[in-house]
Amino acid sequence: VTQGLPRPGAFRLAAGNEDEHLRRALAAFRGVRGPLLGPGHDCAVVDVGGGPVVVTTDVLVDGVHFDLATAGGAAAGGKALLVNLSDLAAAAAVPAAFEVGAVLPRGSAPDLGERIAEGLAAVAARYDCPCAGGDTNVGPGPLVLAVTVLGRPGPGGVVTRAGARPGDLLSVTGPLGGSRAGRHLAPVPRLREAAALASLGVPRAMMDLSDGLSRDLPRLCGASGVGAVIDAAAVPVHGDVYRCRDGRSPLEHALDDGEDFELLLAHAPLGEETRARLAAAGVRLFEIGRVTLPEQGLRLARGEDSVALLPRGYDHFA
Amino acid sequence: VTQGLPRPGAFRLAAGNEDEHLRRALAAFRGVRGPLLGPGHDCAVVDVGGGPVVVTTDVLVDGVHFDLATAGGAAAGGKALLVNLSDLAAAAAVPAAFEVGAVLPRGSAPDLGERIAEGLAAVAARYDCPCAGGDTNVGPGPLVLAVTVLGRPGPGGVVTRAGARPGDLLSVTGPLGGSRAGRHLAPVPRLREAAALASLGVPRAMMDLSDGLSRDLPRLCGASGVGAVIDAAAVPVHGDVYRCRDGRSPLEHALDDGEDFELLLAHAPLGEETRARLAAAGVRLFEIGRVTLPEQGLRLARGEDSVALLPRGYDHFA
Repeated sequence: VTQGLPRPGAFRLAAGNEDEHLRRALAAFRGVRGPLLGPGHDCAVVDVGGGPVVVTTDVLVDGVHFDLATAGGAAAGGKALLVNLSDLAAAAAVPAAFEVGAVLPRGSAPDLGERIAEGLAAVAARYDCPCAGGDTNVGPGPLVLAVTVLGRPGPGGVVTRAGARPGDLLSVTGPLGGSRAGRHLAPVPRLREAAALASLGVPRAMMDLSDGLSRDLPRLCGASGVGAVIDAAAVPVHGDVYRCRDGRSPLEHALDDGEDFELLLAHAPLGEETRARLAAAGVRLFEIGRVTLPEQGLRLARGEDSVALLPRGYDHFA
Repeated sequence: VTQGLPRPGAFRLAAGNEDEHLRRALAAFRGVRGPLLGPGHDCAVVDVGGGPVVVTTDVLVDGVHFDLATAGGAAAGGKALLVNLSDLAAAAAVPAAFEVGAVLPRGSAPDLGERIAEGLAAVAARYDCPCAGGDTNVGPGPLVLAVTVLGRPGPGGVVTRAGARPGDLLSVTGPLGGSRAGRHLAPVPRLREAAALASLGVPRAMMDLSDGLSRDLPRLCGASGVGAVIDAAAVPVHGDVYRCRDGRSPLEHALDDGEDFELLLAHAPLGEETRARLAAAGVRLFEIGRVTLPEQGLRLARGEDSVALLPRGYDHFA
């Protein structure tokens, strides 16, 4: 998820969308000293005196990011940490600890807090990312889980969304679409893949796909000041899309569904040795397109033809 | 605010209270690697590779911590950052950057996000604590603001709630009570005072008073494994208590109201030179009691008599 809050509640403006709200709210911080790497990427980087600290926040709300009644507290807690770890993976950073802020709905099950803690603890143990602390309150609204993860730059340094160059290839780490059939609750943060890629110097720009390729690709291209063309035939479609019978094509699902939490990266063509090392590390890359000049915009190619790639992915303010 | 989430939603349990919920939820993390300083203090300390990072989170909810309709978005945003800076002051730490997670209520004013950002930016500039980033969503509930502040240990190191010894004096940095008359919206984080105190090695244990002296003192004493006696006549009463006409005495307001955001600290008796230096730094200390043996519990003394000091301060789960 793009770092950078708080966005105005301008979701009622006709022209408003999530990215525009972000841009407007950030105007309030003009003239205030900024961090080392500020809003607009998957993680920020701040100077806390002893070296750069990578930090990222995601806020999850019952009814938007999970359905508490069917998923349960443990899955909600687990997802709240996993999606933040996915942001850390996008920066090729290494998790160090997390904080959690929670608002429990008044009148919820007496053990909700414990279930959430169990879900958080299981993920914390799996990714060696201890809970530092946090704060819980009770409120009249739905369950809210706000997790902030701190990490350190990986051996290859912090990877951002900026840095893609015309001629680069675009790849993703796994098939896309249909995550709402269930796997969105337990995404696999691509920390291992990111570490392997970054240690080989592969990613020039990288992000995780949370709102769908069609909405997230423009963010990477915007940050890098480039265009892109996606080869429709090359986009790997997840089998889950066939569990979503809503009349949309498999490709539409893969482009627009969101919550894939796969990495999207721009990179130079890979040499034989790099390919071999990635394969040895168990990293799969699906080449889906290439980076173009900015004036070429964002295109979706089908054979010889191409159409504009429109952002139909998830907009939290729509 | 005590670090350590998520607490179970066990607020409906007869015996339940905020601290007990915290203890239960933390059980889920048994066996998971912990941070350098974990839950139970105002801040946690984590190892992010390049040196210790101090971190703290507070979650604020409309209708609990502020009234958005009367206070406005800027005040809400400002308070969300100020109360976290107060937690950093309690640890005598230095702010470095913050993250903010927000859930805006569906249908709120189009400029709510910008107003919140303005409030945050004003406080960020005042305390040189840049915004690193964050995440905003829209939900059906009230406004939620979850702020996490990162900082570095001050020159005197991190001060915790543990370390008070029998015989120590207990002091606060300002008068207490009546904050709900208005000043709770714009607390002054005692960062300057904490830095001066810690650089002179004064605080053996310290915390900020968010839930009221009668509820917070037991937390400091519990963390230190000590008892305490408070001299009722010595507790400085804020003038604001006289604006709260609800039949409770000024002392009750000072003990129980909460959201004072003054520092409570245990310290050895101060020498002349230390007193002079604190005065030169503009730090006022009000001695309100002393630390006793744990078996003496928590007492409120009125002249020769004393009664048990009961925790009547704010319980978010009550």
